[in-house]
Amino acid sequence: MDELEARILEEGKVLPGNIIKVGSFLNHRVDTAFMSKIAQEFKKHFDIGKVTLILTAEASGIALAAVCSYIYGIPMLFAKKAKSDNIEGGLICSEIHSYTYNKTVTLMVESDMIKPTDNVLIIDDFLANGEALKGLIHIVEKTGAHLEGIGIAIEKGFQGGGDRLRAAGVNLKSLAIIDSVEDGIRFRSEA
Amino acid sequence: MDELEARILEEGKVLPGNIIKVGSFLNHRVDTAFMSKIAQEFKKHFDIGKVTLILTAEASGIALAAVCSYIYGIPMLFAKKAKSDNIEGGLICSEIHSYTYNKTVTLMVESDMIKPTDNVLIIDDFLANGEALKGLIHIVEKTGAHLEGIGIAIEKGFQGGGDRLRAAGVNLKSLAIIDSVEDGIRFRSEA
Repeated sequence: MDELEARILEEGKVLPGNIIKVGSFLNHRVDTAFMSKIAQEFKKHFDIGKVTLILTAEASGIALAAVCSYIYGIPMLFAKKAKSDNIEGGLICSEIHSYTYNKTVTLMVESDMIKPTDNVLIIDDFLANGEALKGLIHIVEKTGAHLEGIGIAIEKGFQGGGDRLRAAGVNLKSLAIIDSVEDGIRFRSEA
Repeated sequence: MDELEARILEEGKVLPGNIIKVGSFLNHRVDTAFMSKIAQEFKKHFDIGKVTLILTAEASGIALAAVCSYIYGIPMLFAKKAKSDNIEGGLICSEIHSYTYNKTVTLMVESDMIKPTDNVLIIDDFLANGEALKGLIHIVEKTGAHLEGIGIAIEKGFQGGGDRLRAAGVNLKSLAIIDSVEDGIRFRSEA
């Protein structure tokens, strides 16, 4: 998606540890008008008419998922990351390793929030190692629902998580794939 | 807001500790079509044309804030709750006590994400003791921006946070104020 790549080049910063910061429009301050263009782009790749639920993980995926959900007219669900007092029994959990926080975190959704008949589209802002997505896929599988596909704004292609998911047969679409950050940000041409 | 009160009565659950759970439409699974009605309701109470930034705190306020941001055509910003590796210097922080998690957490935004000329509308899903809002107000004050007001979906009136903010002169609008949960959920009539 040309406009997304242009904004990454214009506003993105590469921090030590190959962290790519796009907090000016995607996951801190959020340009929701631009998020709606991303939502329209996902529509070209997924059969949105068959999707019944948008799934994401807190916190940085929620804004993009919410705009997609609103544009598509489909409810959304965000997996929570730590046990709080207002989530009681009936949880579907999946443990993942967070490279951002360098610790194991538990993703969880309340079991009555996804039905076995749901057709789920996972939406997230970033894909790096793919740990968060593995957790979300695991949750979808546990509920017996169907996974339609995964829509990602920015994939860090050099970390391999996306290619592992594609090799496993997941219908994954990333709108910008960054293959290298060593001599400036370079994008994979097919994205 | 009648439709919000009706959904709270229909779908809400009161848990021990007077926790009110509305995760079926507001802050776990999110009915974003309904969030757009909430956004329209806030429009009756705030001069949205003068607002330049929607501010919320992660995680449960983000979905509602994102839909408001999209409907109003104004960017949003969500304060983050813990130090992660992809937030470097230049932070504006505010320490708050989280009653949900029973610990002190730090709310923070990157300082270049709010300008002193911004006119900020804070949006959140819940208001109980008002700690999260105090943190967000503190952040707005530190940046020198102007606080236009605070729009809340559900206020737990019996915890007093909302009335303390009103007494302090904040332009606060809660669309449903719950004044008691002891013999079923009872709403304050003016909300």
